[in-house]
Amino acid sequence: MEKKRLYGTIEGGGTKFICAVADEQNNILREIRIPTTLPQQTLAACADFFLQAQRELGAFSALGIACFGPLDPRPISSTYGHILATPKPGWGNADVVGFLKTALGADLPIGFDTDVDAAVLAESRWGAGQGFSNLVYLTIGTGIGGGALVNGHLLHGYAHPEMGHMLLPRHSSDTSFAGICPFHGTCLEGLASGPAIEARWHQKAANLGQDHPAWQLEAYYLALGLMNICLILAPERIVLGGGVMNQSFLFPLIRSELTQVLGNYVRLPQIANMESYVVPSGLAGIAGLYGGLALARQAVQDQQ
Amino acid sequence: MEKKRLYGTIEGGGTKFICAVADEQNNILREIRIPTTLPQQTLAACADFFLQAQRELGAFSALGIACFGPLDPRPISSTYGHILATPKPGWGNADVVGFLKTALGADLPIGFDTDVDAAVLAESRWGAGQGFSNLVYLTIGTGIGGGALVNGHLLHGYAHPEMGHMLLPRHSSDTSFAGICPFHGTCLEGLASGPAIEARWHQKAANLGQDHPAWQLEAYYLALGLMNICLILAPERIVLGGGVMNQSFLFPLIRSELTQVLGNYVRLPQIANMESYVVPSGLAGIAGLYGGLALARQAVQDQQ
Repeated sequence: MEKKRLYGTIEGGGTKFICAVADEQNNILREIRIPTTLPQQTLAACADFFLQAQRELGAFSALGIACFGPLDPRPISSTYGHILATPKPGWGNADVVGFLKTALGADLPIGFDTDVDAAVLAESRWGAGQGFSNLVYLTIGTGIGGGALVNGHLLHGYAHPEMGHMLLPRHSSDTSFAGICPFHGTCLEGLASGPAIEARWHQKAANLGQDHPAWQLEAYYLALGLMNICLILAPERIVLGGGVMNQSFLFPLIRSELTQVLGNYVRLPQIANMESYVVPSGLAGIAGLYGGLALARQAVQDQQ
Repeated sequence: MEKKRLYGTIEGGGTKFICAVADEQNNILREIRIPTTLPQQTLAACADFFLQAQRELGAFSALGIACFGPLDPRPISSTYGHILATPKPGWGNADVVGFLKTALGADLPIGFDTDVDAAVLAESRWGAGQGFSNLVYLTIGTGIGGGALVNGHLLHGYAHPEMGHMLLPRHSSDTSFAGICPFHGTCLEGLASGPAIEARWHQKAANLGQDHPAWQLEAYYLALGLMNICLILAPERIVLGGGVMNQSFLFPLIRSELTQVLGNYVRLPQIANMESYVVPSGLAGIAGLYGGLALARQAVQDQQ
């Protein structure tokens, strides 16, 4: 009889780490939420949870960690598995993978990447990106971040991408807003993240009615961002997630703006049907944990 | 005795097709320039040249075609090997690979890609990108175009990239110039290609002195373009070529602007040393023919 495979997953965020154990069918068997305090404390609690779960359920085939960044996801690097420079106290240079390897055993395959890199992998396995080996996942929420698959593999160059910080032209009606990005002011995140909407219109994005001009402007900036992603990465599909995209009426607005700004320049059948080109996440609400599970599966494959 | 390998290469441009035959050491043994007229005529002349060369020198191991675009470089596609929609009379939908396969024999491995995709491959093999598996080549000349290697493979999604058409913010001193791109007006190509410089300053770029403000503005826009490429693709090195980059004093200006616009956001050692991060082509003047040769080598590898 084949032994049932189990996988550990961590959705590591700025306020909490969600840890879970799942089986081969992604059924969540155990789950815990651990406050994000200091790395030693938070990661020790994660390790305790997984050790106990392994005692009760059996050994894991792998662990996947979908974590806030910036981080180093490149196994060839000397700082692999570390969080990099982050304003979050105590977490700069934290060796997440090293800590968990020590606690859980060096033999356990571990996948480690950003939440958005994990999400694009999960969308391609189980969500809205199935069948696409050139895929982008963009989350629009507290920040804006993107991950990409190229030829079926996660895009890592000198690091993971930081698509949310690309620079864009301003809309002619929007010249005075200074943007909210502490690094670049009016990059995409500075213009179009949830907090940027709030800062521009002086109210919570969720409280703005569907007819509010905020949304047309939001769709415009997101379309410009998607246009640059198209021209640089040529993804076969783009999946949009994150809190802002819960306003599902944004999708037709974005598709229409994207068609317009591309200006008939890209005339390929692959992106002519915008309804199937720019799509909502197929894993809304579970992209984090599933992201970790996708990284765990990947870690097993990478070992084989 | 091992047989000497020979490769055919085509640099297919809008005004001429340069065909050549080279040995394993890239020594050019034969070369011809054929005017770009209509596909049937131009490609037949290319085929004649290669057939004669094969009779005199021996059979080729492969042929590589580095061609103007847009084109379809994806072997899985039904329009693989074709030029796509182009304003060039007669060339829209021209089946370049099909024609040459018929003329030269179906057994000959053929590599087919854009001039800039071919160039990034050649730079990684023999030029300024050796040792880098995540590399971008950007040419700034009559147009602006870019090719990328990701994980050592050419980046193709729904198509090849069209980086020259990304959208950028305007410099505060440059708000009236309408740009020259027929599709997008003020995309990167519309703002910073050679013809854009000429249109903005009413004289040939090559005639502008080193102290002319044109160059600081040019460096600024190119730096914004490189910034977006960094944030979306995270290349380990960027190689710049094309006629505009013959003004070598542009390199320090671009590096300085790029450091500034990144705003200390990307603080990784890989891109901290701008002198080794943004570099001139190592194959200036021969990137086209070497590009074709790199595609020919790739075609042999892909068969194995």
